[in-house]
This record gives sequence, structure tokens and C-alpha cells, in this order.
Amino acid sequence: MTRGRLITLEGGEGAGKTTHSKTIASWLKAQGREVLSTREPGGSPLAEAIRGVVLADWAEGIDATTELLLIFAARAAHLRATVLPALQRGIDVVCDRFVDASWAYQGAGRGLPAPALQAMEDLVLAGLQPDLTLIFDIAPELGLARARSRGDLNRFEAENLAFMQRVRQSYLDRAAAAPQRCVVLDASRGLDEISRELQQILQVRL
Amino acid sequence: MTRGRLITLEGGEGAGKTTHSKTIASWLKAQGREVLSTREPGGSPLAEAIRGVVLADWAEGIDATTELLLIFAARAAHLRATVLPALQRGIDVVCDRFVDASWAYQGAGRGLPAPALQAMEDLVLAGLQPDLTLIFDIAPELGLARARSRGDLNRFEAENLAFMQRVRQSYLDRAAAAPQRCVVLDASRGLDEISRELQQILQVRL
Repeated sequence: MTRGRLITLEGGEGAGKTTHSKTIASWLKAQGREVLSTREPGGSPLAEAIRGVVLADWAEGIDATTELLLIFAARAAHLRATVLPALQRGIDVVCDRFVDASWAYQGAGRGLPAPALQAMEDLVLAGLQPDLTLIFDIAPELGLARARSRGDLNRFEAENLAFMQRVRQSYLDRAAAAPQRCVVLDASRGLDEISRELQQILQVRL
Repeated sequence: MTRGRLITLEGGEGAGKTTHSKTIASWLKAQGREVLSTREPGGSPLAEAIRGVVLADWAEGIDATTELLLIFAARAAHLRATVLPALQRGIDVVCDRFVDASWAYQGAGRGLPAPALQAMEDLVLAGLQPDLTLIFDIAPELGLARARSRGDLNRFEAENLAFMQRVRQSYLDRAAAAPQRCVVLDASRGLDEISRELQQILQVRL
């Protein structure tokens, strides 16, 4: 049996990832593929418990190092319990955020050192990389305004603009460094326009 | 103000660490020191929540990598919220298990690669090392029999003898490599005898 494809969605807040994820799943199903839609952090009971811990509002606060370790722990559990078994059974996995998010948020955003991130990526991914990473790029001002209009912001969404600028730049740099894996989409446009471009990209890339 | 001392207790199951930790705290208090007794994983509300996740019985299981990341996440939170503030205020901290336990259990016991452990140690400890590490050494057969007679075993205590042999050897190797920091005590003896030796060691080392 052919291995499933791992397709990841990345981008700042308010980039419309949830909607685009559904478009991708529909497109794949129309091609006759079986699809599993999932997200990080979370995606298995253990990983969801870790998500609960990392997104909770702790009186003692939560420092960048603890956050990074928890997110990689959730990733390890999610991969083992959910993503890898699906890929092995030939199912395509569409994942809202993956390892690029750690480089963007905890690396560029919070300034954690690259060697620590690389060591965790090597340990947890053991060489696995997405077959396709779609980066929904949007100016932080616009993205945050959209996220705010959706309702309450979580801890990441409440970060300041300078933080979100570092996140955005990191995504763009990573896309430039891995053009065979990454495609950047301008997410400031209307959903219909993005959806049309997205389907063209899927046609060419998958 | 003088910085407090960090004293860690290590060893396999059934080595009597809980009892010996009380002996150490009493001895320090008798010297006029303020003492904080704590343990890993845990020691702050966030770290205790992570402990709950790592020791829970998950239907999906919990693999060695997820366990390692969660334990270092708990360590990072514990250090930041509890250990470092106490040391800075001149309080001696007596901690039941610390980073040596990760090398023994997750490194030697579960076979996780040393570079990953070293990267996490560098990230989380940022150079901090215990002032004194007491390793309570006991043959796994005897330690497990003692732990069993105490009541139900947790996930680590239920590991097999070969695992516990690797843990024990790792502790002995680490002690041999850092004699200025580590002291090995024969924990197969009676508590009174160990307690007397322990007080002599504290007299000489602290």
C-alpha cells in the first residue's frame, strides 16, 4: 500500500487555516483519497491533555522553555498515536500546524536557541517531513484584527505585534529555504480567491 | 545573601529516599538553615499537572520520547517557579530526583540518545548543577521487593529487572564521573545505619 501524504498548514493568527484545512480535505476526498484532519498541539487523548496544560492560564506563568518542551511532547504523542499509523495505512493527513510552528513561535518568536529545537526535531520526527506545507501569510495587524473579531484570543493570539512579525518572517524564511516542500499563499485576500489558488497548488503538488 | 545549596537524592525504587530526605532536612535545620523539600517530577502547580499527565495510564500508551520531554518540561517549570527563587533567597533545596534521574531512567533505562538529553539539560538547567547529589544504591531485586511491600507500584516501579539494572549502573557511572558532586551510599543496610553515614557525609560536604 502507498504511504499517505502529510500536508501541514502554517501561518499566523487570522490566516483562515481552519477554513483552508476543510478545502484541502474536500479536494483530497474528491480525488478518492481517505483523509484524516488533525491539529497541533493535540490530536490524541494524551496530546490533547498536554494541549490543555500548555494553553491553561497558570498563576506561576509558563516560560518559553516549558512551553517548547510541552509542545514537542504533544507532537511526539500525536505522531505515534495518530499521524504515523494513518500514513502507514495509506491515509492522507492534513495537520493544522506542525514542526515549522515551533521554529516560528518558540524559536523566532520567543528566541529559544536553534540547537535545542534541532535536537528535539531530530528526536521526535526522526527524519519525517511533511510532503507539502502550505504557509498562509498575512500581515500581523490584519491577522490579529481578524482573530479578535472571532472572539476571545488564546495566549498565543494575544502576543504583541513584534512577536507576530518575527513569527511571520520565520515562516517566510523557512519557505524560501525549502521551496520543494513549502508554498506561501497570500492570506490577506478573500477566502474564495485563496481557495481557488489552493486547489491549483494541490493539483500541481500532489 | 549567600545562595542556598541544591541537594538532590537519587536512586532506584525502594532505596528509602523519602525517609533520607527528611533526615537531610532535619540536619540542615539543626544547622540553622531554612530548607525547602521538593520532588521531581512536580514541585509547582504546573509541574504537578505535568506529573499527573506523565504518570497517568493512557490507553494509547506513552512512549519514551514523550515521557522524556514531559519530564524536562516539569523540571523547567519546577526550577523557575520553586527551586531557583528559593536558592536565590538563601534557602537550601532538598530535591527527590533531579536531572541524573533523566540520564538513568530515560537515557540508560529506555535507551534515548545522549545528544537529545544533553540538549535538554543545557536548555533547562543553563549550567545549574546540584551542590551535592546523594545516590542511594540498592540491588534492583531488593529495591523492588521493598517498593512492592509498600503497596501498589507506579509505572516506573513496575519496570523489569533488566531496566532497573541499567538505571543502577547509570547512577554508579555518573557518580564515578563526578566525585566532587556525587556520593554513593549503600542503601541495602538498615535505615539507622544509613542515616548515621548520611549525617557524616553532610558534615564533611556541606
